[in-house]
Amino acid sequence: MKITVWNEFRHEQENPIVEAIYPKGIHHTIARFLTEAGFKTQTATLDQPEHGLTNEVLDKTDVLVWWGHKAHEEVEEAIAEQVKTRVLEGMGLIVLHSGHFSKVFKKLMGTTCDLKWREADDKERLWVVDPSHSITEGVGEYVELEKEEMYGEHFDIPAPDELVFVSWFEGGEVFRSGATFKRGQGKIFYFRPGHETYPTYHNQEIQRIITNGVKWAASPKSKKPTYGNKQPLEEISKKG
Amino acid sequence: MKITVWNEFRHEQENPIVEAIYPKGIHHTIARFLTEAGFKTQTATLDQPEHGLTNEVLDKTDVLVWWGHKAHEEVEEAIAEQVKTRVLEGMGLIVLHSGHFSKVFKKLMGTTCDLKWREADDKERLWVVDPSHSITEGVGEYVELEKEEMYGEHFDIPAPDELVFVSWFEGGEVFRSGATFKRGQGKIFYFRPGHETYPTYHNQEIQRIITNGVKWAASPKSKKPTYGNKQPLEEISKKG
Amino acid sequence: MKITVWNEFRHEQENPIVEAIYPKGIHHTIARFLTEAGFKTQTATLDQPEHGLTNEVLDKTDVLVWWGHKAHEEVEEAIAEQVKTRVLEGMGLIVLHSGHFSKVFKKLMGTTCDLKWREADDKERLWVVDPSHSITEGVGEYVELEKEEMYGEHFDIPAPDELVFVSWFEGGEVFRSGATFKRGQGKIFYFRPGHETYPTYHNQEIQRIITNGVKWAASPKSKKPTYGNKQPLEEISKKG
Amino acid sequence: MKITVWNEFRHEQENPIVEAIYPKGIHHTIARFLTEAGFKTQTATLDQPEHGLTNEVLDKTDVLVWWGHKAHEEVEEAIAEQVKTRVLEGMGLIVLHSGHFSKVFKKLMGTTCDLKWREADDKERLWVVDPSHSITEGVGEYVELEKEEMYGEHFDIPAPDELVFVSWFEGGEVFRSGATFKRGQGKIFYFRPGHETYPTYHNQEIQRIITNGVKWAASPKSKKPTYGNKQPLEEISKKG
Repeated sequence: MKITVWNEFRHEQENPIVEAIYPKGIHHTIARFLTEAGFKTQTATLDQPEHGLTNEVLDKTDVLVWWGHKAHEEVEEAIAEQVKTRVLEGMGLIVLHSGHFSKVFKKLMGTTCDLKWREADDKERLWVVDPSHSITEGVGEYVELEKEEMYGEHFDIPAPDELVFVSWFEGGEVFRSGATFKRGQGKIFYFRPGHETYPTYHNQEIQRIITNGVKWAASPKSKKPTYGNKQPLEEISKKG
Repeated sequence: MKITVWNEFRHEQENPIVEAIYPKGIHHTIARFLTEAGFKTQTATLDQPEHGLTNEVLDKTDVLVWWGHKAHEEVEEAIAEQVKTRVLEGMGLIVLHSGHFSKVFKKLMGTTCDLKWREADDKERLWVVDPSHSITEGVGEYVELEKEEMYGEHFDIPAPDELVFVSWFEGGEVFRSGATFKRGQGKIFYFRPGHETYPTYHNQEIQRIITNGVKWAASPKSKKPTYGNKQPLEEISKKG
Repeated sequence: MKITVWNEFRHEQENPIVEAIYPKGIHHTIARFLTEAGFKTQTATLDQPEHGLTNEVLDKTDVLVWWGHKAHEEVEEAIAEQVKTRVLEGMGLIVLHSGHFSKVFKKLMGTTCDLKWREADDKERLWVVDPSHSITEGVGEYVELEKEEMYGEHFDIPAPDELVFVSWFEGGEVFRSGATFKRGQGKIFYFRPGHETYPTYHNQEIQRIITNGVKWAASPKSKKPTYGNKQPLEEISKKG
Repeated sequence: MKITVWNEFRHEQENPIVEAIYPKGIHHTIARFLTEAGFKTQTATLDQPEHGLTNEVLDKTDVLVWWGHKAHEEVEEAIAEQVKTRVLEGMGLIVLHSGHFSKVFKKLMGTTCDLKWREADDKERLWVVDPSHSITEGVGEYVELEKEEMYGEHFDIPAPDELVFVSWFEGGEVFRSGATFKRGQGKIFYFRPGHETYPTYHNQEIQRIITNGVKWAASPKSKKPTYGNKQPLEEISKKG
């Protein structure tokens, strides 16, 4: 299984606080624990040619992990469309945190994907609401993060196919924090935590959930459907 | 309740067979039975300025009915975006037949909305699979159409929030023919039948289902959610 | 539209605190605001013959509202089965608060319906997560209850057909507080708040939500499906 | 992964036509192809003590496959309850064909699970409607069965969590033939085909789908949730 971790990779180069937490970038941290989990992992970033998402790279991608925040608009339209198409054709997609506002996710959801937010060191507690889901394997009843950015409802997404986590925030809000969607032959997992100024992706439980998400999103599918004009499979009676 | 029926209105002017069935256009036929059902109804067509979908018209639209087929690409991007935004803000949307490939529906679904099709006078039988749904009010166990265009699975849409009808086709296919989706504050009903060369919209059962769909899509909603940066509702503890 | 409000009606007769809040019983308070909303409303209680749920009463019930807590086991099996059957045949059902553990709800859900709970004067804030839903009509972004019993996840129910409210609790938990289910031709709304020692059903926003829920649950349906052995609608070819 | 295949095993002993197709019983045929697929497989039948479903057997069961038809009522209530409880605790369940009317399935669904049926050598064509689902791995756009019993809508089940297959029948009906449900920590796959007088379980595509279903139903879960009275995780303010 081949994973590509995509990162905007700007905060880490511009903000010393973020750099201190993720010296080689968020993508590097995520790629490392996915590699340790046994996946074949590569990375790609915004400032690479074609944002690092060439056809060659995408051809070798079973699941794409996406982190972006301040430069969503810099992602070229054609590349966002290409990633969307790949998802519909079966590539898994893990959208992390502020990736809710990425072109790719918004195109796939069809909604604004808007939400409430606050950077105020809220405590977050992610509760498992679907303990039958493989994304929760090995996870306890909740995961607690001492400090995180708050995201609050209403989260303007389609009703998820599966709701896996709901977050409690210290400041009084709730959020559908872990949600799955199937689009075309592709499987999508949105997972909320991971503001760049907190060490969230160093948290082992968060790592486990992302790892589980990658496994889930890459599961095998049927043969590619065919579309368009078709001959009948049964005889059609003559009508007046 | 104010309904706007939008129609591409090209087939009726170019094809005498279609003109014979819908002399004043499909929109006129649909608007008439919706008016008889008690709705305040107006129409709009592609070749009107702004496709007839000015802000003034949309301001007076609780539910928009959409029929398009051969000229989807002529719908201006900005107007398709505007209609999508209105739906997310709460306007109901009824997408009929080949409207599955309209810009508006594809933007809202996030998928290709592709399918199999055949123009061969297939008999179609639409089975109710959700007899609790108000869209099926007064409908029997199935609706039979002697001749229709075939649409076959796989229909590349997100899993509907509710699946209401499944069609059987004489030539051997099935199709998810009546499906609802909620997006933002808007409610969407996709309803399959209505190829322009058949008198489908003169069928009373089909009229009843579209009328029910309009009622369902216009149901009241909560106040508009707010988004963006928010102060906490509870005190947040100081952390290290 | 005819509503029957069913109440266990024990706490109010045994506990002076509850009696002070609901002197004539929770059912009386709920029936009053539903009557004021224009519904034809009757009540029924556990200690009446057949728990007040005779065939005659059920024949006149479009929507049944259910409040029970400490005496679930005293509800006769046959009557619980009868109520379940009525729901499957199209009667709406509003299950309030501790009704999650009622025989009727557990039979309809097929799960344990278990949850976490605490009586400790938690503040509760119910957030709207589906602002397109008619049950949220006229409701703001959230409803705040100063003091309530806490119910926490995991709530062992099937994934709801629609998730409408999610609660935040002061003590650190979340809960899927407003959820809809369709079963057979019946529509079910589970709504969490309403512990007997708090004046929750005097709260106007809570009243509005229950009123909306009743309207939603009573919506019209298709004709009753038929089951069993059927003749073919199309000719079946002879096979070897 | 340990699989138990449960079979009523009556038709095969009473009807020479069925015996000719499944000389050692349907359970034996299913167990064999699951064994060949690499699962550790055992069987159990109705006429064994405790229907072969002792605690010892269930303790060694990750996924239970269920085939029953004419003797649903002979399954002891306590054993049906026990199987249901195991599913809620995480055991996977594959319900085949007439198992729709088994005590276990009806208890888990909460509905009548009724449907239309006909034994008339209908051709059946199962269409994939969710090509992203791992249950469809290696399956083409449809599976065709030359002769099968017809099952027709309305199928009185809760809206499935995922709809995977829809059947077309020669006699004019459709049916939701492959559907998944999650209940508690357990995953359930209902799969329609398999009338005892046809060699359906010898069909390699059907075998593949059941094998995929078993894999899907056994996927890992989170730790077991806890329920009941809980201390707060956050301090609760004193109120008046």
